[in-house]
Amino acid sequence: MKVAEADTIAAISTPMGEGAIAIVRLSGPEALPIADYIYKGPGEKKLSSVDSHTIHYGHIVDTETNETIEEVMVSVLKAPRTFTREDVVEINCHGGIVTVNKVLQQALKNGARLAEPGEFTKRAFLNGRIDLSQAEAVMDLIRAKTDRAMNVAMGQMEGKLSKLITQLRQQLLETLAHIEVNIDYPEYDDVEEMTHRILVEKAAFVRNEIEGLLQTSSQGKILREGLSTVIIGRPNVGKSSLLNSLVHETKAIVTDVPGTTRDVIEEYVNVRGVPLRLVDTAGIRETEDIVERIGVERSRQVLKEADLIMLVLNYNEPLSDEDIKLFEATKGMDRIVIVNKTDLSQVLDMDRVRDLAENRPVVTTSLLKEKGIDELESAIQSLFFSGGIEAKDLTYVSNSRHISVLQEAKSAINDALNGIDQDVPIDIVQIDLTRCWELLGEIIGDTVHESLIDQLFSQFCLGK
Amino acid sequence: MKVAEADTIAAISTPMGEGAIAIVRLSGPEALPIADYIYKGPGEKKLSSVDSHTIHYGHIVDTETNETIEEVMVSVLKAPRTFTREDVVEINCHGGIVTVNKVLQQALKNGARLAEPGEFTKRAFLNGRIDLSQAEAVMDLIRAKTDRAMNVAMGQMEGKLSKLITQLRQQLLETLAHIEVNIDYPEYDDVEEMTHRILVEKAAFVRNEIEGLLQTSSQGKILREGLSTVIIGRPNVGKSSLLNSLVHETKAIVTDVPGTTRDVIEEYVNVRGVPLRLVDTAGIRETEDIVERIGVERSRQVLKEADLIMLVLNYNEPLSDEDIKLFEATKGMDRIVIVNKTDLSQVLDMDRVRDLAENRPVVTTSLLKEKGIDELESAIQSLFFSGGIEAKDLTYVSNSRHISVLQEAKSAINDALNGIDQDVPIDIVQIDLTRCWELLGEIIGDTVHESLIDQLFSQFCLGK
Repeated sequence: MKVAEADTIAAISTPMGEGAIAIVRLSGPEALPIADYIYKGPGEKKLSSVDSHTIHYGHIVDTETNETIEEVMVSVLKAPRTFTREDVVEINCHGGIVTVNKVLQQALKNGARLAEPGEFTKRAFLNGRIDLSQAEAVMDLIRAKTDRAMNVAMGQMEGKLSKLITQLRQQLLETLAHIEVNIDYPEYDDVEEMTHRILVEKAAFVRNEIEGLLQTSSQGKILREGLSTVIIGRPNVGKSSLLNSLVHETKAIVTDVPGTTRDVIEEYVNVRGVPLRLVDTAGIRETEDIVERIGVERSRQVLKEADLIMLVLNYNEPLSDEDIKLFEATKGMDRIVIVNKTDLSQVLDMDRVRDLAENRPVVTTSLLKEKGIDELESAIQSLFFSGGIEAKDLTYVSNSRHISVLQEAKSAINDALNGIDQDVPIDIVQIDLTRCWELLGEIIGDTVHESLIDQLFSQFCLGK
Repeated sequence: MKVAEADTIAAISTPMGEGAIAIVRLSGPEALPIADYIYKGPGEKKLSSVDSHTIHYGHIVDTETNETIEEVMVSVLKAPRTFTREDVVEINCHGGIVTVNKVLQQALKNGARLAEPGEFTKRAFLNGRIDLSQAEAVMDLIRAKTDRAMNVAMGQMEGKLSKLITQLRQQLLETLAHIEVNIDYPEYDDVEEMTHRILVEKAAFVRNEIEGLLQTSSQGKILREGLSTVIIGRPNVGKSSLLNSLVHETKAIVTDVPGTTRDVIEEYVNVRGVPLRLVDTAGIRETEDIVERIGVERSRQVLKEADLIMLVLNYNEPLSDEDIKLFEATKGMDRIVIVNKTDLSQVLDMDRVRDLAENRPVVTTSLLKEKGIDELESAIQSLFFSGGIEAKDLTYVSNSRHISVLQEAKSAINDALNGIDQDVPIDIVQIDLTRCWELLGEIIGDTVHESLIDQLFSQFCLGK
């Protein structure tokens, strides 16, 4: 690949906000000298002369005014046993936005450059500590919304996907080597001839493995990104109760903003390992005019982009025109019909509802009496994870980039197989196999363009 | 005081949100054994047997399933050279809400207790590492909105206020000792007699010092908490432009919530070191009906609670009834009148405006042409900091608790002085001096009730 840049980068590596600890991280050949400029430890201690992997109490001072900026603990990590494989200094401050920014400014004034988003991880990749799929998993881990998504990311970070991809590429490479020998030295008898049969066998194996990975991908993607979920229904059918039940029964993941009254920013609900991202939750909570809004283009768009629709009906009322409209608006989508208020007497025509539901699940609940929620959760789970998501040894492919590369690789290997089948010259087959090998290399970053790398890492958060 | 609790506490010490690094902190006698339960390092490494102030790579594992939860760097800090004076373990994770929570859960499952807000700092106080005013400064430092506020907090954290208070208490103690000797051993000639003159001198010195501290307090409070500022004016006079000018010209401090579109939660504007907290900014930006809302009780309340009113008028229009109403609604408040749009021809009766402004500043601006902003900033600064806020050696008292305790102490020392003046028996004066000594002790936490301590630390953020 290419050699890592030789400058020293710095960034705030903790989320912005009031917290107990904030960290300014430096990485690069000048990390220690820069830290020494701005650090004042007890007894003229110099960070460049301390042992690696040690922690030092002291203060950060303004190099111009000599004023103390912060009381800190500085971690010194010397290359190569670091995240970036370069010298790394982590300055632990007392949290707070102003102070941590001041500390960063001092580092920048004394020779460091502000790191781009993801640049620390990029250096870890460029310096060979991790491959590309592992680097991407780092970000997935940070963004994980459920335990299961976290496990998948952790597995990928530990190199499970990399290992599988590397094995497949090895298979392809061996096959290509055999072909090469057959082409170059057709006179060698002791070289096993790459017969039609063996070629097909090897290529089919690779294709099957790729297909297997792709089969897990839809589940992986859901785990990674969550199911965008919309709850619809007429006023007073129990949409808010449904939302509250899901939030209370399961583990809701919300992002707190400390010090503000607005405490819920994003709402994820974890239903048996399936992360539901509740779209426009605030809107659903505050307004009951969703039916009216169905006609509006924007609402149609929200429905269209949803992965899961929960349509709520009232067991105690007849099916209305509005209900029918909701069925029509969500026809063909992944939809669960929830018939609520079974604690009241039946008025709703359930046969009609089942007809309208078109083989999709219909669940009866009494959210008031906390009945039917288990059944609802089962329905959600089995709608998306027919095989169950608890199988621990699955290597989920969750990343859209990986999925699209795998699809191209599958098409390349299929081309190779078709070529063999139609007895095209072996060097044409060779081209397809090489393409497949290269594509798989893109996943682990072995055969990938620099611009793509830049783009990938730019999606990371600052300081990572 | 009292002995620190003997259990081990744990909490997430970084702000919640997606970030590059998240930290789970443990403190207490079992911090190392608990960390060893959940940590798996290379070659069976045990954290309890490593050197203090060292950093160790490894993984956190689920002690039940043996699954890997996170790749971590663990900092081991052994008592007593730690923030809490207890054994401290900091587990640095890859950011992310789910993973860091999982790591915390493992610590809690294996013997740690979830820390209360501020409990780490409370232990630092209880174990004598810092006094109460220093502990409070830790939180001020985190919440600081400007460099100046940060400097004040830093000075307090370094013990500047503590030192001053301790000196005053020492003075009082010496005076009390003299009185004691005079009362107990009136026959000793060589003991300097606590004459009227000397008593007055000593007590007056203490009173003057306390008064000096209190004089800085209004400025200190502003630096610490910011001026809550409301911009009012009729539609289209330039309120939004004013807001934007202040935000662009100065350093706006906003809190970002990563991953959401709503990127501004709180808006502080730093005008020459004076932090303005813009109240109801969203409302001002979105609606122009502030005039209409003046009649509403809630709006009156917002105005009443504001530290600074900016009343914007249009240079190009005559004074309207609405303008007059705004003057009336803000009569007697700290108000700056901004006459905007001086790039257009004058229609406004400026003499009338100056009359209505009642000796408060009137600034003319053309926000469109970026004129008059400097003058506006000067006006804001001199309205609140007549003496200038750049004097570096001032020990600002910024904390409301400190201010109220100082006021009580001042009243006690005044009682003592009055008593001396009126020749009341010396043991009555003694009581007042002792009260003053005790009150000053409350600032540094030497003579303070446990319930107050609990209440103070509960205002801290989690994990601090």
